[in-house]
Amino acid sequence: MPERIYNFSAGPSMLPLPVLKKAQAEFVNYADSGMSLFEMSHRGKIYDAVHNDAVRLTHEVYGIPTDTHQILFIQGGATLQFAMIPMSFLGQGKFAEYVTTGTWSQKALKDAQLIGDAREIATGKAENFMAIPKKFTVNPSAEYLHITTNNTIKGTEWHKLPDAGKVPIFADMSSDFLSRRVDWAKIGLAYGGVQKNLAPAGMALVIIRKDVLAKASQTVPAYLRYDLHAGENSLYNTPPVFPIYMMKLVLEWVKEVGGLEQMDKWAQQRSDLLYNAIDASGGYYKGPCAKEDRSRMNICWRLPTEELEAKFIAEASKKQLSGLKGHRSVGGCRASVYNAMPIEGVQALVKFMEEFKKANPA
Amino acid sequence: MPERIYNFSAGPSMLPLPVLKKAQAEFVNYADSGMSLFEMSHRGKIYDAVHNDAVRLTHEVYGIPTDTHQILFIQGGATLQFAMIPMSFLGQGKFAEYVTTGTWSQKALKDAQLIGDAREIATGKAENFMAIPKKFTVNPSAEYLHITTNNTIKGTEWHKLPDAGKVPIFADMSSDFLSRRVDWAKIGLAYGGVQKNLAPAGMALVIIRKDVLAKASQTVPAYLRYDLHAGENSLYNTPPVFPIYMMKLVLEWVKEVGGLEQMDKWAQQRSDLLYNAIDASGGYYKGPCAKEDRSRMNICWRLPTEELEAKFIAEASKKQLSGLKGHRSVGGCRASVYNAMPIEGVQALVKFMEEFKKANPA
Repeated sequence: MPERIYNFSAGPSMLPLPVLKKAQAEFVNYADSGMSLFEMSHRGKIYDAVHNDAVRLTHEVYGIPTDTHQILFIQGGATLQFAMIPMSFLGQGKFAEYVTTGTWSQKALKDAQLIGDAREIATGKAENFMAIPKKFTVNPSAEYLHITTNNTIKGTEWHKLPDAGKVPIFADMSSDFLSRRVDWAKIGLAYGGVQKNLAPAGMALVIIRKDVLAKASQTVPAYLRYDLHAGENSLYNTPPVFPIYMMKLVLEWVKEVGGLEQMDKWAQQRSDLLYNAIDASGGYYKGPCAKEDRSRMNICWRLPTEELEAKFIAEASKKQLSGLKGHRSVGGCRASVYNAMPIEGVQALVKFMEEFKKANPA
Repeated sequence: MPERIYNFSAGPSMLPLPVLKKAQAEFVNYADSGMSLFEMSHRGKIYDAVHNDAVRLTHEVYGIPTDTHQILFIQGGATLQFAMIPMSFLGQGKFAEYVTTGTWSQKALKDAQLIGDAREIATGKAENFMAIPKKFTVNPSAEYLHITTNNTIKGTEWHKLPDAGKVPIFADMSSDFLSRRVDWAKIGLAYGGVQKNLAPAGMALVIIRKDVLAKASQTVPAYLRYDLHAGENSLYNTPPVFPIYMMKLVLEWVKEVGGLEQMDKWAQQRSDLLYNAIDASGGYYKGPCAKEDRSRMNICWRLPTEELEAKFIAEASKKQLSGLKGHRSVGGCRASVYNAMPIEGVQALVKFMEEFKKANPA
C-alpha cells in the first residue's frame, strides 16, 4: 500500500494529512509538558486552552454568533441527541414536527415519539427517500421543526433551510457540517456526530440558540441536561479530549486553507465533477436521486448490473480508491466526499469511472 | 521540562509510555492501510479486529466470564450510566437501593431518584464520607444494590463487595477498574469512565450480567438501551474509536507486564509506600480517612497548615511530581496512583515528602 489512499467512506472518513501529522508529532509529550494531552487533568491550563480554542474556532470558522448561540461537545453522537432533544423539549402539552428524509430522520422521529408528541408532517418515504419533500406547513405552535440536512445513505440534501416561520429549526447536520454558510438565526439547535466533516468519532457537536437553551428541561438526569453542559462549557464531566483536540486542529487547517468559503467551493467542485461524470455516461452510471436534491457530500450511483457494481468497487479499491460501496440498505456505489477529501481524489475517481465504463460495456 | 514527568492527576491520568509510543508510531498510517485508524469505516475489517480484541482482552485480562457477562463500550462516561441504569431498570413497581460514600455515589442516587424509586439505605455523610458504611441490610426484592467501589475525591474504597444476597450489585468502578480480582458472579452491572485505569477519556466500560441485560427496558430511546448496544456488540452507532483502540493497547501492556495480579501487587505497593510515609511522619502528614477503608488508588493527606500544603504542591511540581492538589471540595493533597503510575514515581514522591518535612517543620 502507498503511504496514503483516497478513502470515500461515509464516516468515519478522511482527515487532513497535515492534521494527522501534527497530532502524531505532539502525541507523547504535549507542549513540552512531559505528558500526553490525553493524560492531563481536564481542569488544567493546558487542556483548557485546547478546549477553549475548539469552541472559539467553531464560532469563528462556521460564522456562529457568540451572542445568540452556544457550542457544546456531548458524547454519544447524533444518536444520543435523538433522545436528549425530546427529553428536553417535549414535556406535557408540547409537540414538535418532523420531516423524514431517510434512515436517520426516521430514527430521530422514533425516539421522539417514545418520549412525547412528535408529529411527522412530511416524508419522502413513498419515493423511497429519493427526493426531499418540500410541501408542508409548519404549525407555529410547534416547539421545533426537525430535519436532517443531508442524508448520508440515500444521497439527498436540503440545499436551503425550509420555511418554518418563527419555529426554531432543529437540524441533524452530521453529514454536511461546515460545508456551507448557515443562517444561524433560523437554527434553534444543530447537532451531529463529528466523524465526517470535523474530527474522529467520539462526540456530537451541538450548536444551541440561547432562547432555546433557556427552555431545556432541568428535571432530566444530569448528562441529558443541555443547561448543565452549557453552564460548565461542556466540562460538567470529563470531556472526550481526543475528538475535541482533533477538531481544533481541523478547524485551524480549515482556516489556513481558506475557511468556510473554501469548504463550500470544494464541496461544489467535488460533487460537480462526480455528477457530471454520472450524467455524461450515457446512462451507464445512474444517479437515483432527484437532481435538485442531490447531496454534495454523498454521491450515489448505480451501474447496469450488480455484478458490474461489485467489479467496479473491487477494481477501484486496487487503485487506492477505497470505501465506494453503497450502504447495505440501498446497494450500488457511493462516494462520500467530505471536507478533507482532496479534489485530486475525486479526479482520480472520475478518471477510473471513465476507464471502467470503456473496459466493461453494458 | 524532561521528556516524561510523574502525573498524579485524579483522571485523566498516566498511560503506559510504551502504549503512547506505539499509538504514535501507527497514528498516520495504520497497519499499512494508507489511512489512520481514525479515518476508517467502523464496519470494516481492520477496525473490527481492533474492536473485538478490546472486548476479548477485557474478558481475558480482567477474568470476566464470557458465558455470564457481556462487555459494552458506551459514550458519556459514568455520568450517562447514572441515567441509563434507572431508566433501564427502575420501571413502575420496581425499586433499587443505594449506598452513598461520596460525591459520585450521591450523583448516581440523585439521577436515579429523578427516574424511579431509588432508596438510600446507608450513607457515610455524617462522617463526611471518611469511612465506608457497612451496617445495612439489602432488601431481597430490590432490583439492584448500587455502590461506588472507590471514592476518588474522599480517598476511600470498598475492599470487599458488600453482602447483597441474591440482589445483583451495580457498581461504579471508574477509579479502581482492573486493580484487583472481582467476584463477577455478584456483579449485575459494573461501569465506569475509562480515563483513570484503562484508557484516555471518551467512554464508559460497562460489564453487564446476561440475566440483568435481559431485564433492561426496551422502550427507552435507542442510545439508552443496553440491549441495542449489546445486540450490536457496541456498534449500534459509530463507536468512540480512539479510547477503544487505546484500551486495547493498555490491556496488551497489562498482559505483558504480568496481568491483573501484577496490577493488584503494584496497587498494594504504591499505596503501602504512601500510607507508610504518612503514618511514619509523626503527625506531620495526616490521612483523614478511616484506616480500614483507605483507597489504594487515591491517597489523600493533609499538612499542618494550608500554607504548607500550597508550598508542598508547588515545590513538588518543580520536581516533576505533578497533580498533587486535593479536590477543590476537600483541599489538602492527593496522589492518584492508577495502573500506569510507575513505582519509581511513588518512591520519588515519598522521598520528596521526607525532604519537605525536614525543610519545613510544623
